Amino acid sequence: MASADGSKLWGGRFVGDTDPIMEKFNASIAYDKRMWDADIRGSKAYAKALEKAKLVTAEEKDKILHGMDQIHDEWAKAVFEVKPGDEDIHTANERRLKELIGEPAGKLHTGRSRNDQVVTDMRLWLRDAISILKGNALQLITTMVERAAVEIDVLFPGYTHMQRAQPIRWSHWILSHAVALSRDVEQLQEISRRVNVLPLGSGAIAGTPFNIDREMLRQELAFDDISINSMDATGQRDFIAEFLFWASLCLTHLSKMAEDLMLYSTKEFSFLTLSDAYSTGSSLMPQKKNADSLELIRSKAGRVFGRCAGFLMTLKGLPSTYNKDLQEDKEAMFDCYDTVHAVLQVTTGVMSTLKINPSVMEAALSPDMLATDLAYYLVRKGVPFRDAHGISGKAVFLAESKSIPLNQLTVEDLRTASPLFSSDVSAVWDYSSSVEQYSAPGGTAKSSVAAQVEHMRTWLKKQVQ
Amino acid sequence: MASADGSKLWGGRFVGDTDPIMEKFNASIAYDKRMWDADIRGSKAYAKALEKAKLVTAEEKDKILHGMDQIHDEWAKAVFEVKPGDEDIHTANERRLKELIGEPAGKLHTGRSRNDQVVTDMRLWLRDAISILKGNALQLITTMVERAAVEIDVLFPGYTHMQRAQPIRWSHWILSHAVALSRDVEQLQEISRRVNVLPLGSGAIAGTPFNIDREMLRQELAFDDISINSMDATGQRDFIAEFLFWASLCLTHLSKMAEDLMLYSTKEFSFLTLSDAYSTGSSLMPQKKNADSLELIRSKAGRVFGRCAGFLMTLKGLPSTYNKDLQEDKEAMFDCYDTVHAVLQVTTGVMSTLKINPSVMEAALSPDMLATDLAYYLVRKGVPFRDAHGISGKAVFLAESKSIPLNQLTVEDLRTASPLFSSDVSAVWDYSSSVEQYSAPGGTAKSSVAAQVEHMRTWLKKQVQ
Amino acid sequence: MASADGSKLWGGRFVGDTDPIMEKFNASIAYDKRMWDADIRGSKAYAKALEKAKLVTAEEKDKILHGMDQIHDEWAKAVFEVKPGDEDIHTANERRLKELIGEPAGKLHTGRSRNDQVVTDMRLWLRDAISILKGNALQLITTMVERAAVEIDVLFPGYTHMQRAQPIRWSHWILSHAVALSRDVEQLQEISRRVNVLPLGSGAIAGTPFNIDREMLRQELAFDDISINSMDATGQRDFIAEFLFWASLCLTHLSKMAEDLMLYSTKEFSFLTLSDAYSTGSSLMPQKKNADSLELIRSKAGRVFGRCAGFLMTLKGLPSTYNKDLQEDKEAMFDCYDTVHAVLQVTTGVMSTLKINPSVMEAALSPDMLATDLAYYLVRKGVPFRDAHGISGKAVFLAESKSIPLNQLTVEDLRTASPLFSSDVSAVWDYSSSVEQYSAPGGTAKSSVAAQVEHMRTWLKKQVQ
Amino acid sequence: MASADGSKLWGGRFVGDTDPIMEKFNASIAYDKRMWDADIRGSKAYAKALEKAKLVTAEEKDKILHGMDQIHDEWAKAVFEVKPGDEDIHTANERRLKELIGEPAGKLHTGRSRNDQVVTDMRLWLRDAISILKGNALQLITTMVERAAVEIDVLFPGYTHMQRAQPIRWSHWILSHAVALSRDVEQLQEISRRVNVLPLGSGAIAGTPFNIDREMLRQELAFDDISINSMDATGQRDFIAEFLFWASLCLTHLSKMAEDLMLYSTKEFSFLTLSDAYSTGSSLMPQKKNADSLELIRSKAGRVFGRCAGFLMTLKGLPSTYNKDLQEDKEAMFDCYDTVHAVLQVTTGVMSTLKINPSVMEAALSPDMLATDLAYYLVRKGVPFRDAHGISGKAVFLAESKSIPLNQLTVEDLRTASPLFSSDVSAVWDYSSSVEQYSAPGGTAKSSVAAQVEHMRTWLKKQVQ
Repeated sequence: MASADGSKLWGGRFVGDTDPIMEKFNASIAYDKRMWDADIRGSKAYAKALEKAKLVTAEEKDKILHGMDQIHDEWAKAVFEVKPGDEDIHTANERRLKELIGEPAGKLHTGRSRNDQVVTDMRLWLRDAISILKGNALQLITTMVERAAVEIDVLFPGYTHMQRAQPIRWSHWILSHAVALSRDVEQLQEISRRVNVLPLGSGAIAGTPFNIDREMLRQELAFDDISINSMDATGQRDFIAEFLFWASLCLTHLSKMAEDLMLYSTKEFSFLTLSDAYSTGSSLMPQKKNADSLELIRSKAGRVFGRCAGFLMTLKGLPSTYNKDLQEDKEAMFDCYDTVHAVLQVTTGVMSTLKINPSVMEAALSPDMLATDLAYYLVRKGVPFRDAHGISGKAVFLAESKSIPLNQLTVEDLRTASPLFSSDVSAVWDYSSSVEQYSAPGGTAKSSVAAQVEHMRTWLKKQVQ
Repeated sequence: MASADGSKLWGGRFVGDTDPIMEKFNASIAYDKRMWDADIRGSKAYAKALEKAKLVTAEEKDKILHGMDQIHDEWAKAVFEVKPGDEDIHTANERRLKELIGEPAGKLHTGRSRNDQVVTDMRLWLRDAISILKGNALQLITTMVERAAVEIDVLFPGYTHMQRAQPIRWSHWILSHAVALSRDVEQLQEISRRVNVLPLGSGAIAGTPFNIDREMLRQELAFDDISINSMDATGQRDFIAEFLFWASLCLTHLSKMAEDLMLYSTKEFSFLTLSDAYSTGSSLMPQKKNADSLELIRSKAGRVFGRCAGFLMTLKGLPSTYNKDLQEDKEAMFDCYDTVHAVLQVTTGVMSTLKINPSVMEAALSPDMLATDLAYYLVRKGVPFRDAHGISGKAVFLAESKSIPLNQLTVEDLRTASPLFSSDVSAVWDYSSSVEQYSAPGGTAKSSVAAQVEHMRTWLKKQVQ
Repeated sequence: MASADGSKLWGGRFVGDTDPIMEKFNASIAYDKRMWDADIRGSKAYAKALEKAKLVTAEEKDKILHGMDQIHDEWAKAVFEVKPGDEDIHTANERRLKELIGEPAGKLHTGRSRNDQVVTDMRLWLRDAISILKGNALQLITTMVERAAVEIDVLFPGYTHMQRAQPIRWSHWILSHAVALSRDVEQLQEISRRVNVLPLGSGAIAGTPFNIDREMLRQELAFDDISINSMDATGQRDFIAEFLFWASLCLTHLSKMAEDLMLYSTKEFSFLTLSDAYSTGSSLMPQKKNADSLELIRSKAGRVFGRCAGFLMTLKGLPSTYNKDLQEDKEAMFDCYDTVHAVLQVTTGVMSTLKINPSVMEAALSPDMLATDLAYYLVRKGVPFRDAHGISGKAVFLAESKSIPLNQLTVEDLRTASPLFSSDVSAVWDYSSSVEQYSAPGGTAKSSVAAQVEHMRTWLKKQVQ
Repeated sequence: MASADGSKLWGGRFVGDTDPIMEKFNASIAYDKRMWDADIRGSKAYAKALEKAKLVTAEEKDKILHGMDQIHDEWAKAVFEVKPGDEDIHTANERRLKELIGEPAGKLHTGRSRNDQVVTDMRLWLRDAISILKGNALQLITTMVERAAVEIDVLFPGYTHMQRAQPIRWSHWILSHAVALSRDVEQLQEISRRVNVLPLGSGAIAGTPFNIDREMLRQELAFDDISINSMDATGQRDFIAEFLFWASLCLTHLSKMAEDLMLYSTKEFSFLTLSDAYSTGSSLMPQKKNADSLELIRSKAGRVFGRCAGFLMTLKGLPSTYNKDLQEDKEAMFDCYDTVHAVLQVTTGVMSTLKINPSVMEAALSPDMLATDLAYYLVRKGVPFRDAHGISGKAVFLAESKSIPLNQLTVEDLRTASPLFSSDVSAVWDYSSSVEQYSAPGGTAKSSVAAQVEHMRTWLKKQVQ
């Protein structure tokens, strides 16, 4: 506010008609230009609908289509010139169209608002992006499943609470992560269905007049459905929020896998070695080989969820319909796409090139990991599991007291815990037969793991049909 | 670490075999007892599977089932006594079973681990909770759709950027929120499918031995599917994460509706009045009537998303399989269920009892909200929309300069902006005909809004089938 | 993993020594080059310490300093050429130094690790950034305080729960936000102290050998303190986390102010008008003037907190010392700085140019807002406040029943609620004297608001000393 | 809205004057009763101020004080009866006072609003809570520092990127975490100063009339300062947000320490053993000893940050002054306090009782961890570090090729990498002298670690003064 003579009474940064910081703050062209192709596709379809509604002539429509193709070429060849007034991709393309074809360009926006235009562009862009991510995920899952098929005979310790629990197959571990990723793919499909709904023809808030044929627009742009309510269509960004959360949960899965792999590749575990392509050295310590790829994968779950948290917080408490706050949607979408796109590919690289050390893995199995089997031995002789668990626990304690491995206890030693032990207990101390007990669906027996491989192969085939 | 003689060298809070703070920190019974019924159902099904696997006799199974029924009664009558050692609901129920039936109780855990037991209980519990929330959401949507049907003739200003934009139907506004909620219901169904997968029979990590029939368990407990991999089954909580995010997005929708309603119920807007049942007074200001219900609804989006953020952060970077960190899953699940359950019901109450003030709403329509229509008038006379938009803008400026409403400009005034204006421009200044232009699907014309009502009614019918 | 003959058994994206996607994924130069100046300052100081420790000669040191100055020029003139192997700013600068001065460049990294180098750079960069943000915040506060001083006589409704509560001064409202911002400045100072601690000389993890004089480094780089423990120094990013949260809380304050201003600038409130420089029009609706600046301000609280949430989640559960996950620190830091930097300036622009409509503001005061004063009238006559509150409530109800303003009730009307009312009650109905009651510190009386202005002016003076 | 005859047209859950779900949704007594003592203290101080302002007589004041003392007793003895209408602690205490002393109770709220009352109570409560947490943190730090002092001679591998990096002292590791916690204590002090500001006397929004002496209130309640602006005082919860973030960052530190300890207590590392008091067994596997305490500690960082995220999201975009949304503040505050309170104590228990295995720790040191020292050997002979780093790397590669430890390379072998190697290189292969190189402040040399211990002891002494 200025005094009568225009001088400012309370100072302040800025007086004048425009504020360059505000203009930069307001503009989205720096990032939304990435949707140039979607914007052009949307405008071409809209030009056709305008012709059908007799709002442009066939000739005008052709001029618009032709102009748009020219603009497409300019973007594709990276020669499109963004000019100062181009605050967003929509303005830029329309401005350029005007330069190229003159007056008919002014008709393209008839009955259309940036509110329905921008969300149409985003849906077109994200639809393609989701398709690429699905492909990346399927490639990773395929790599993992086929690796699991090949290395099915390798045993190693299964851990719970980061402590050795029971012997399992290495392939069982691989598949546990592949299965989680397959859920991600399924969820992505569901989101894709909600993305693939046409908002164009919703105007700014009230809808579109002029008999614009939304069904025709839907077909032109290959959407599955038409939005039900124009206020909702222009003001909601649920599909973005869902996508951001999807990315977060997917990367949480990969953070888990990365954490396991980091543990397994420590000197102390030495179960596996990363390919040099996914490791880096130290600027100080010549001997270091760091699993940077895995650390980056682990970290990105945080980054991506931050985008999700930020966007949800931006949405919270907003009133209905379009508010400029929604402009936060695009950078979040792009960043999450880029991140997941890179992470999935790097993870595929890591998983297809790491080398396991089967002998170290099997050597890490220890008799105490068969304490449950020892209890099961008693269960098979009729002891209730709770009691058998207690007896086996006593045997573990006894072995620890004697500083010998559990399988070095004599039958006499064991009998101090239960008279039911006899010489056949020696059969317990076999890791290979231990894992074969777990033959129920989902277990770590060879047949069960092989069935998981087949299950996943069948599932993968369905995905690419 | 202690010195040779057992005295502590560095002090510290605690010496001894148990630490009461640790015990409380570790125990979950205070909240997981809420799953008592699910735990009993799971154990009864498991007892049957044990019998089939010949691990318990028919008689033992009957004892277990009977004992479990008795425990069920104790919980139902709120007489079940939680005892000091009962760190969780599973321990509590098993301990009580032992007291009631003796030895066979010790067989119930054969081949079962708390790892697969707890996640089975959670899935059973959440399945029921989701069903209740779906019912709550459908009731709210029904209320909204039927209200929209009745009040379809009420017009009021549609806002974008919190500024008056175009005249719309009040029912169009109601439906914009109902449509968002219908997406929530659809997403909840998808989550429900992923919840409804049986993990029981996965053991601690490796699977279950002893020919436990997982398919039989699935049928007994009415799950749709069986988990594919035992490590994934016991170590993943994706269904919880998805549910927490679902609750967040759903409440973000309601925070938006609440924000609108708060605006509309300010003295300045005066479009509607909340029922006293959903308002409160002030401890200081006798005249105050505050929309506390709406403020609470708005606030809960934050609370619930906080739970989601917290749980995702807890998951990030965890290694595979069960880690105690996962214990954070239950309080988050319960709190989000309780919150959404309350919010949906209170919102239904608010929406079914608020009174609108149609005369105030229509009086808030102003001629400048028809500036787009004025541009469309010129479009119909062949002016490209961009130019028409500019001409209409000039007219708006002219009216402001003259301090008169836009519709008070004479045809001569308008002609200074464009010679195409003639006396038929007067037809523009009619709010009722303005809204009728938006007859494309999703628009605010009466036919279009009525079609939305029908669409939603059909959708609702499908949901309850 | 490859079979004996090198062919891949399970396919996968990639085989070879390097993976271009991994290289891009790993590199930080795209964004950390922003710290080029800090990196050069750190290296120059380190060269001096190396000389003191006799690890380089005086001549070598001079070559390094001179080379670094040349690199500084190249960056400053934007002619520095980033080359393929330059994965980060440290590598780029060192590589360039080698090109410029040859062998002595290879001595610069003696006893230094990227681990202590990168965190030194970040602290130098952030220290400057904080100083700029403090300046931005002080300018905004100054603008607000001086505006408050000028417009101290304007009264308008104070709202709680978005409902009219009591008459207050407009300046009281301004100051309520200025006071919140002053807390932000104080908190920023505290963070600044924790930023201003030298980590250089911590090496990769164990510290630095060779008698590097850390005290000399501290003085050269003008740090206040030296880090206490080398593992903590290289592995902690608390100062980043604190800064991200600071940005979040600060922008939450501005989201609150923006929300108020948006309400006040609706047609329905019409308390104020934004300068055109901070408003934008609609692509569809010619009459629209949207407060885009305020919506953007409101939205950024979400964006910035998302960064904070993402980074905290990345930190959660990391093991000690440097892990590559920490690389997420820089983009978050830059983005939050840029965002707060823009928001503070735009808000200053908004606050220094908006025009208030004092007549509309005062006209919005209504007699029911004096219901508390009516109760106080009775309190002054000895009625306990709880009873007076009830009596005043009855009067409000009576006026509503009669559809008249509260101040139109006759003394007789009022006496039906309490016999203590007499003709002197008419003095209650004066907004100007109502506000003057609140003369305790912090209240809305003129003297009290003027005292707040003085308090803030004094505080501001202290900040710039 | 109902039809003319009062019947509902659109159904809905609820018709009537009250909705029990709404009442429960609105009430906070279930949790805010925890502030009973703070509420009583605030009311007693306010009664004194009322007397000074001549709003109550000395006798009335005494009655109020006496009544409040009686209520205090009832709460302390857990016999206070919460009644149906008691929606919050303030209402409950005032209702009870009325029952106990009659009319003067009605005067207690004169000029006070729940808005300033509730935030006063919270500040009083949190001030005490912070004091307790500070004590817990100091006890933990003391335990760690003293343990570090005792075990200063134990060496073990320092890790970066979870890979062995350089030999360090175990005490150096302990202190790295203690130092982080000392920053938490300092930040907590700063927050405490911002908590310790009196808001009472701010009324609902406009301030307090009646010459309530706020300075007297400040003294009575031992606040450091008086709030500056009544709107800010009643509407801000920055001190809660800061506290929630503080808790998050503090627990992120402990999640880091817990992660290290979990690694170190795996079978593969075997560096240390947790006390049984902080471990638990498995329901299935008799041999398991799980570090549940550490997993719970690690998990709580997520929980607490979730509270912070939730509350910030609730705050985002709220308008000024008190809105009911703020009611989310209390559960978040209580939960974070309880969680940090437990975590700090359990961590103290863990740290004071765990046993390290020094021989295993030292045995884990390997010659390749001295590759940096090998490079330093050459640096001391004048080789630029970059070149020395390369030569040492060649030696590492050579040793790997020969499958021998680095220190088993002969001088001849080494000379193939650099002619500067001679027999004195054997001095490099000594872990004890390696660590002694790092004698600069913050390093891992004994003198440097001892200095850190002294630094922390001095700091601790200052904290308790």
